[in-house]
Amino acid sequence: MRDTVKQDCVTILRAGIEAVDPSAAVKKSVSVTGDRLQIGGQDYNLSHCRNIFLIGAGKASAVMALAIEEILADRISDGVVITKYGHISDCRKITLVEAGHPVPDEAGFRGAQSLAQMAARCGEDDLVLCMISGGGSALLPLPVTGVSLEEKQETTKLLLNCGAAIHEINAVRKHLSQIKGGGLAHMVYPATLISLILSDVIGNDLDVIASGPTVPDRSTFGDCVDILKRYNISSSIPDSVRTHLLEGASGKRRETPKPGDPIFKKTQNLIIGSSIQCLEAAERKAREIGYNSLVLSSFVEGETREVAKVHSAVLKEVISFGRPVPRPACLISGGETTVTIVGGGKGGRNQEFVLSCGIDLAGWRGAHVFSVGTDGTDGPTDAAGAYADWRMVERAQELGLDAHDYLKRNDSYHFFKGLNDLIMTGPTKTNVMDLRLLIAT
Amino acid sequence: MRDTVKQDCVTILRAGIEAVDPSAAVKKSVSVTGDRLQIGGQDYNLSHCRNIFLIGAGKASAVMALAIEEILADRISDGVVITKYGHISDCRKITLVEAGHPVPDEAGFRGAQSLAQMAARCGEDDLVLCMISGGGSALLPLPVTGVSLEEKQETTKLLLNCGAAIHEINAVRKHLSQIKGGGLAHMVYPATLISLILSDVIGNDLDVIASGPTVPDRSTFGDCVDILKRYNISSSIPDSVRTHLLEGASGKRRETPKPGDPIFKKTQNLIIGSSIQCLEAAERKAREIGYNSLVLSSFVEGETREVAKVHSAVLKEVISFGRPVPRPACLISGGETTVTIVGGGKGGRNQEFVLSCGIDLAGWRGAHVFSVGTDGTDGPTDAAGAYADWRMVERAQELGLDAHDYLKRNDSYHFFKGLNDLIMTGPTKTNVMDLRLLIAT
Repeated sequence: MRDTVKQDCVTILRAGIEAVDPSAAVKKSVSVTGDRLQIGGQDYNLSHCRNIFLIGAGKASAVMALAIEEILADRISDGVVITKYGHISDCRKITLVEAGHPVPDEAGFRGAQSLAQMAARCGEDDLVLCMISGGGSALLPLPVTGVSLEEKQETTKLLLNCGAAIHEINAVRKHLSQIKGGGLAHMVYPATLISLILSDVIGNDLDVIASGPTVPDRSTFGDCVDILKRYNISSSIPDSVRTHLLEGASGKRRETPKPGDPIFKKTQNLIIGSSIQCLEAAERKAREIGYNSLVLSSFVEGETREVAKVHSAVLKEVISFGRPVPRPACLISGGETTVTIVGGGKGGRNQEFVLSCGIDLAGWRGAHVFSVGTDGTDGPTDAAGAYADWRMVERAQELGLDAHDYLKRNDSYHFFKGLNDLIMTGPTKTNVMDLRLLIAT
Repeated sequence: MRDTVKQDCVTILRAGIEAVDPSAAVKKSVSVTGDRLQIGGQDYNLSHCRNIFLIGAGKASAVMALAIEEILADRISDGVVITKYGHISDCRKITLVEAGHPVPDEAGFRGAQSLAQMAARCGEDDLVLCMISGGGSALLPLPVTGVSLEEKQETTKLLLNCGAAIHEINAVRKHLSQIKGGGLAHMVYPATLISLILSDVIGNDLDVIASGPTVPDRSTFGDCVDILKRYNISSSIPDSVRTHLLEGASGKRRETPKPGDPIFKKTQNLIIGSSIQCLEAAERKAREIGYNSLVLSSFVEGETREVAKVHSAVLKEVISFGRPVPRPACLISGGETTVTIVGGGKGGRNQEFVLSCGIDLAGWRGAHVFSVGTDGTDGPTDAAGAYADWRMVERAQELGLDAHDYLKRNDSYHFFKGLNDLIMTGPTKTNVMDLRLLIAT
């Protein structure tokens, strides 16, 4: 039973990941028939296009760009796409730049400059296809004139330390960047811009994914100045940053493009893959192989071991009372949890989730848990996640491993290595956060 | 809309609480026709009974006993029931004792002695009806001979501080008590014993509710000695406790009654009310007034604000994708969360749950949250819980209240007092933990 269910989990995971394969997702959304380019249900007449430029940034963007090359072949005029070191593809028509992530580096800065220069060349009759995916923000570092990359990073650090909310930090960062917060759309205008987006954020907020380079920004310079005041950091941020924001608030700098700005009449943002597609494909596959499957939520966040308790609580309800779905049941959830590290162990949020659930569900006959990062990586480990069933604690004891102790030390990796229950997928080339399965046979 | 939904929540709550009213629950489970007493589907011929004794302990037990008096009237020979100060009823045939809870006191000790004396009088042809409800453990303090109440309490405190698990603490406590862990069943034997139980614990584990006075105990003296060793507290516990446990482990003391012990052939344990009945009644009422209602889980536990995030995540799924149920939806959960207090504010787990959800769901049009303690009390406050909707943060801002700040200070009570969104029910005379409703209109 154990091995069968574990194998089922891997089968369901594979279906989920296939549904968000960046290349397949691009090819599902984009097609060419003669001179007609169809993207996301809309038609573009290529005979009216002077140039087609292919740009983008993100961990999956080189793979997405290659899919576009395969579709459009020689019609592409030029392009530049920035991706993380080791994440390149076989693109031939365009320039691929490898750069630093999650910490931006000089290569990213130079890549962003090339991309900005290309955007500036775009004219009214040009079509720009932009491949956006997770990591795009760090890979496109282009601060406003007068502010250095270091000064921008120092500001972000100060905001993080003073307890500012994430939307406040983003408001400031967008106002210190030439690209984020709609900046890229502004550069490309008056060309037609189509962004194909692989979302790695909860809720798929367009202005959050890669900091929304092609999306209107609702925040203002005035908000930024208020945020500095609220957290009392006006005097501690770099002079250049303070000057830029104050001048912006007094109308001396151009605002980020707002909703309703004419540039967005020529901009289309299209999410081609996200947690939703992954979870729904997993749900279909689970049903196909015999489970009553149910997506609980794609919005899951919070402290991993507490999130695990609530997931376990729902599976206990399934086992005890056959609801919200009867057995054999497969509950599915997505999103991304966090781990507050207190121990010196090795692990990741998915492995810790499974370890926590395994403890909560000890003795709950027929309970199985599986959780993986869809990119194939969980924390600083070589595993994608882990698997456990209701005998995890007992099996560990037989091997001399104390589950509670490993959890306390955040050492889920070595725990599951000992149990031979790490899930290894290798890099999947996509990322739509996590996939969790809770099964009651 | 706001007031309508808030009113709906109160209506659903009322249906849930009615379903676990201790008096109604007893009357639903117990009836007399001539000489036939029917309890939980079983028949007892009262003409074969010499005496009927009515005993019990717990916060709802005096009310349960009164219901039995109303059913059996003059057939009751004698009885003693111990309840918390202020929780008495109008019983006339039996002795009601008021005692200390959650900290046991001398009155409880004397009450437990009276109860033990009555149990010792029971013969083979007697019937003992035992009313167990939450709080029964603290209200029945009767340590084994040679160990004082203070020494037992000191041992519990040491176990709590050294990080022992709750089942380990309970194993030791059961072996230091004459009543817990099946002790009461042992005293009553060879009379017939029927326990009517109102459960206030997650999963309704019979050996946990009131420390299982009428239920087999799987733990042993040997386990207790292992626990002292494991946490290295053998030398710090009182001498009397160490002596008792070591003598027990070497076979010189009577073990607690184990599964299969003949006394349990004459013992019946019947859960007459629990979170399940409350949640299911709430689910029916919600459906009746037009919601697609769904019980998510009766097993919910964990740190309140993290548990809130997962509940909010499921409601976001409802609002975004109409699953696991379509709108208008009412998700229902039970169990009991915990709050790690870091601020100096005033509140309770239910109010903090609603405050957390209100923040998570800000701007999620149509989202409503409601959470209450079914006993009518939430933490050290006069409120049972609170209500919020998707405009909570905004409404609070208009009143100059910062929701994040109140959450940070664990000050949910003053926050909802300011918003006029505390839910006040007064004491409900029952307790089946919490009732949470998440509604999407």
